[in-house]
Parts: sequence; structure tokens; C-alpha cells
Amino acid sequence: MNGNSSTAGKPIRCKAAICRKAGDRLVIEEVIVAPPSRHELRIKIICTALCQSDVIFSKLVDPPAIYPRILGHEAIGVVESVGEDVTGVKPGDTVIPTFMSDCGDCADCHSEKSNLCSTLPFNITPYMPREDKTRFTDLNGNPLYHLFYISSFSEYTVVDKNYFVKIDPSFPPDRACLLSCGVATGVGAAWRTAEVEPGTTVAVFGLGTIGLAAAEGARLCGAKRIIGVDVNPDKFEMGKKFGLTDFVNPKTCGDKSVSEVILEMTNGGADYCFECVGMASLVEEAFACCRHGWGKTVVLGVDKPGTPLKFSSTDVLRGHKILTGALYGGLKAKRDVPILCKRYLDKELQLDEFVTHSVKFEEINKAFDLLEEGKSLRCVIWMDK
Amino acid sequence: MNGNSSTAGKPIRCKAAICRKAGDRLVIEEVIVAPPSRHELRIKIICTALCQSDVIFSKLVDPPAIYPRILGHEAIGVVESVGEDVTGVKPGDTVIPTFMSDCGDCADCHSEKSNLCSTLPFNITPYMPREDKTRFTDLNGNPLYHLFYISSFSEYTVVDKNYFVKIDPSFPPDRACLLSCGVATGVGAAWRTAEVEPGTTVAVFGLGTIGLAAAEGARLCGAKRIIGVDVNPDKFEMGKKFGLTDFVNPKTCGDKSVSEVILEMTNGGADYCFECVGMASLVEEAFACCRHGWGKTVVLGVDKPGTPLKFSSTDVLRGHKILTGALYGGLKAKRDVPILCKRYLDKELQLDEFVTHSVKFEEINKAFDLLEEGKSLRCVIWMDK
Repeated sequence: MNGNSSTAGKPIRCKAAICRKAGDRLVIEEVIVAPPSRHELRIKIICTALCQSDVIFSKLVDPPAIYPRILGHEAIGVVESVGEDVTGVKPGDTVIPTFMSDCGDCADCHSEKSNLCSTLPFNITPYMPREDKTRFTDLNGNPLYHLFYISSFSEYTVVDKNYFVKIDPSFPPDRACLLSCGVATGVGAAWRTAEVEPGTTVAVFGLGTIGLAAAEGARLCGAKRIIGVDVNPDKFEMGKKFGLTDFVNPKTCGDKSVSEVILEMTNGGADYCFECVGMASLVEEAFACCRHGWGKTVVLGVDKPGTPLKFSSTDVLRGHKILTGALYGGLKAKRDVPILCKRYLDKELQLDEFVTHSVKFEEINKAFDLLEEGKSLRCVIWMDK
Repeated sequence: MNGNSSTAGKPIRCKAAICRKAGDRLVIEEVIVAPPSRHELRIKIICTALCQSDVIFSKLVDPPAIYPRILGHEAIGVVESVGEDVTGVKPGDTVIPTFMSDCGDCADCHSEKSNLCSTLPFNITPYMPREDKTRFTDLNGNPLYHLFYISSFSEYTVVDKNYFVKIDPSFPPDRACLLSCGVATGVGAAWRTAEVEPGTTVAVFGLGTIGLAAAEGARLCGAKRIIGVDVNPDKFEMGKKFGLTDFVNPKTCGDKSVSEVILEMTNGGADYCFECVGMASLVEEAFACCRHGWGKTVVLGVDKPGTPLKFSSTDVLRGHKILTGALYGGLKAKRDVPILCKRYLDKELQLDEFVTHSVKFEEINKAFDLLEEGKSLRCVIWMDK
């Protein structure tokens, strides 16, 4: 037991950044964080990074929008207290929370293939995963809603026992927190979902953090040629660190579509395509320039719910291509995050290059500005600095 | 060299069944079969089976319709003569023609994954693959068009050296000819494309020969449960021979969609779904009831060119499912047909059960009637009986 044990079982009053309404800047207020239930743990956040999804949810008007909400889902923290059914972790341990369950006991968790726990399937609710209640209230007792079962823009948060992975406390926290979501998603998509083979050609549509991480994952897997696609030409230089060898700007393709340009550049198509923007038309372009015979197109971007993807049935039949998608890059957090940590320590996986900025908790809105202005990849927000 | 060598290098006059116009019954006429060019072989057909594609092409009004045409593409024959660049086969050898090239020398042919030869890509032309000319003429010297580079409804035909596989002459010819197209496509889709694993659950949409062959392939791979979907309830009994354990009739699903019924029956979806009808809506249903996490949907049916397949981008992203398609079931003829022949001889693969009828060449229109009336799976047409 660590020094925090005196708070165990009691509500904790601390600071959190609250999004009170769509499009508003966050406001830091005092909140009450309830003690964890029997199958939960309460965590003191060390640092947290800002992901594009936080920005999207801070502006969302239609469901699943709900306010006031505590955003944030890329984080690392120290366990403050645990519920009685929580095993394998104790107060004082360092953990990263994850947005997908890993119960360890269902068909999916037992399978090497699936990372979609069927005990607690992925779902976007504003509550804890097992009950429609929040663990946050404001000082007037009103609920403050959760995001992705993490809500790390708070000095303390509560997560379910299926939603974390233990981390060596000596691991740099501002690198570890990247493995909660975006960077892990991109790297995992290349490594686990696409299983990129050495010597192959890859095309990445959209060079935000997820796209650059997909490039990094492909580089790590030994891809020979990595083509980045983005409307911002500055991304090429930035992407070279992560293995980009070629660049296509859709704005300068003239009469040709991006897929036509890539089919020509690659003499028949890329072996793997990653769509990291969240535009149905780009998924279709990616599939179109994926090589026949074995090409895989992996959908990582999130379009508006229900947006249709359209493919020609003849192309699907004749192409012998594969279309698939993956949450969290197909990673199983408990199995894969430790491997990624080791590869970082072995100087194989690059994480430092993704952390372009860091701010104090009080400056959290600056992190939003930097991301929205396209200036940052990951801005780390330190709770205690 | 066999007894046929006296005809080598000369045109052969023989009988062929000609489709003179869309929807007409075939007429048997005398035709002239040109000698093979340097990279071709001329084959004396032993027997040929009727496939649904022949029926479709016999009625086609829009392109790629063209008449008069010699249909037929599931066959076996004996080599009569070979062009000077043809190696590995000699007059007297038994071969089955195939509708896909296997040059043995391109990236696709070298790959274990692709069966889409890039030297001579799959294409539906009415000519030989390397030039826009036919090898058939009628007695007035007018061209008679080819189908799938095979045109086996003729006593003799000419095929390209990339489009055949040698067969042990002792192998029953009316079983071997099934491996040219339909049965091989279904079996291959389960075996090579989906790589069905033992103990899994499979759903097959459409129980014609290809669908039943997909069931047979799944049975061969050790699937535990094979659900057939068809509007004809008689297909269940027929399908039990090929491993069907369950049956869903879309007409009796009430308010539910087929995918909803299958999701319930399987408690979350089938591990593999095969669409063997050629209806975009059924591909969508198949994808919908494919299990999240690892489910694979394989498109085998041929819808009208360009028909769009629509999927929700959210489902593709979150499902971690795979959508793919395969011509010829992903088989590489030279590699896989000998394996299938061996498995038949070892009494593992069932072929006999697909041959429900046989007729003489003169009765070829009866084969069309039987298939169109849903009475036959494969009707074998013997050229010499």
C-alpha cells in the first residue's frame, strides 16, 4: 500500500478540466471523484495527451454528445486504490488506462485474432462500462460525464479493472501515455491488423498522429516504401522521421485521382493501405489502389456513424483484396503494450518524435489550440508540473 | 506423339455447339478449328460440364455479349497438338483447361497468395488471350467467338499454354472436369481464400453448385457447423451430403433479416460467410452476420458489373471483420488441382455427388434445361458417347 491509502474508500476532491458545452473551452474546476466500486480502480493521473477524438467530442452537438463531460483518454497514472474484486494491481502501481475491455476470459480475449472483448463490447457511453452512473460530480452534486471510460483530464479518475495495463514505473510517462490510443492504434494497425511484411509498399491516407504512427508501424515491420497522402505538403518532411519515402498531395494530382497516381507510382498498387482520416471516399480510394491478389486496406478513421462505404462488387470479387478495420489497431493491450514498451527501450519503436509539445494542466486549452492549428502531433499535459 | 499427330498443323473440321443469338438454344454444326499458334495447344475434349455462367452467357444481351459464340468452360481433354513454345505437355497428355492464366513467372504467380496472373490478367474477351482473333470459324469462314479462353462445347478447342493443368489420365474424366470452374471455386474459397479452421461455423448464401462446393470445402476443412441459406427448401436435404447442418430460408424469416437470424443462431455470427448468388444485398447480409473480431466474408457470386456494395464505415472500422473476394476460389490451378485430385482419390473430397446427370453431346440443350429447372447440379456432356 502506498501513501495514498488514507484516501481509499473516500471521495477525493481534486481538479478536472470540464467541457461544459459543445465548442466551449475547457474550464478547470474542483470535482468530486467517487471511490472505485468493487471492480474498479482509482488512478492519480501523471500526464495525459490530447487526441483528435477529444477535440471532436468537445465540439459534438449530436449524440453521443453529452455535457458537462470530462474528456481525455491517453494517459498514465498511479493506482490510488482498488476495489475488492480487482486483482493483479495494487495501490502504487503504474498503469495506463485503455478504452477497450480485456476481460481475459471471453472467446475474443482467448483468441489471438480479436481485440473486441465480448464481455464488455466497445461502446461510447458517458458512464462506467458496467452501470449507467458516473464517478464524477461537481461540487453541487451534479454528474460529470465520462469519455471512453477514461476521462483523464482530471487529477484523479476511476477505471474498470478490464481497462488498464500495468507499466514499469521507470518507463517515461510522457511516452507511455501515447500507447493508450492514437500512436498505438497506428502502429498496431500496421503490425497486428495488416501484418505488414518486410520489403513491401504501403500507402497511408492522412498524416495526423494515427497516420504517422501507421507509417512508423510499417517502418518497424520493414516496409520498403511508404507513401504518405495529405493535403498539407509540410507533412512529408514531418513524416520522413517515421519512414515516409514518397508523398502524394491530392490537391496537385491534376486530372488523376489519388488512387490512379498511386497505382502508377507502384506499378499496380500498394500492398497495404491505411485510411486514417475518416472519409468514406478515401476508404474507397485506398481500396482502389490496393494491389490485387493480396492487398489489404485497413480502415482506421472514424467517419460519421452510418456513412456508407461503396465498392464495386466486381472489384471485390475479382481483386482478391482484403478490406478490414480495427479499433486500437487490433492491439490487445495487456499482450501488446509491454511489447511496444520494450521495442521503444530497444530503440526500435520511435515515440519521442510524436511528442511535439508539453503544457501544464492549467494550460490545457493551449493543447487544443496547437492540435487544431496543425502545429502539434501529441501535446502532453502534465498534471503536477 | 499419339495417333492425332497426323492432324497437327492443319485445321480440324469437327462438331461444336454454337450459341447463335441471345436466348437461342444451341445448334450443333460443323466448324473449323485452326491449329494452335506457337504458344497454344489444341485439345480433343473428352467431356465438359455445364456451369451457370454458360447459361448466363447464352442469354446475355448487353456487353460482353457477342454472337455466334462457342460456350463451355468446365472440361477435360487430350492434347492433339502443341505449338513450338509450349513446354511441359505433349500430344496424348490429358489436361483440364482453366479460365485463369498461370504464367509461372510474374509476381502473382510467384506469390503463394495471389492467383491473379499479372502477365495475362483475367478478362472476358471473345478471343484468345494474346490476340484479338478466334481459332474457330464456321464453314463459311466467319468467326465463332470464344468464352473464357476455353469454349469446350466443341469436339476440339484451342487453349493458351498458361491456361491448363495436366491430369493423370486414369482420373475419372467426368469428375476431373468439375475442377475447371464451379466446384473448384467453392471448395477453393473455403480452403484457400477463407482458410476455414476446424471447429468453426460457416454460413453459405446460395446453394447452387458453387455454394454447395463451398460447404464441401468447409466440411473438408473441419467446420463444425455449416448453415445453408436458400429460398428453395429442398436444398437442405441436398446440402446435407456436403456437410450442411442448418438451413435458413429467407422467405420464412418473418420480420427478421437473414443476418439477424444467423446472428441469433450462432450467438454472435458465423466465423466465415460465403456469398454464392451474386446479389449485392446478400453480400451485405453476409458481412452483417459475420462474427466481429475475425469473421471473413468471401464474395464468390457475380453481380452485374459495377453494382455497388454498401457497408457502414462504422461497422467496417469497429467490426475487425474481413471482406474479400476470389476468382476460382483463390486456387492456383497448377498447384491446387493435383491436390484436389488426390483428396478425391483418398475419399476425402466429394465430387461424385455433384454429378447429377450426364448426356450425349447431341443432347446438350437438355443440360441447359436441367440446370435452369433447378434439377441438376452438374450435368456432364460426353463428346464421344
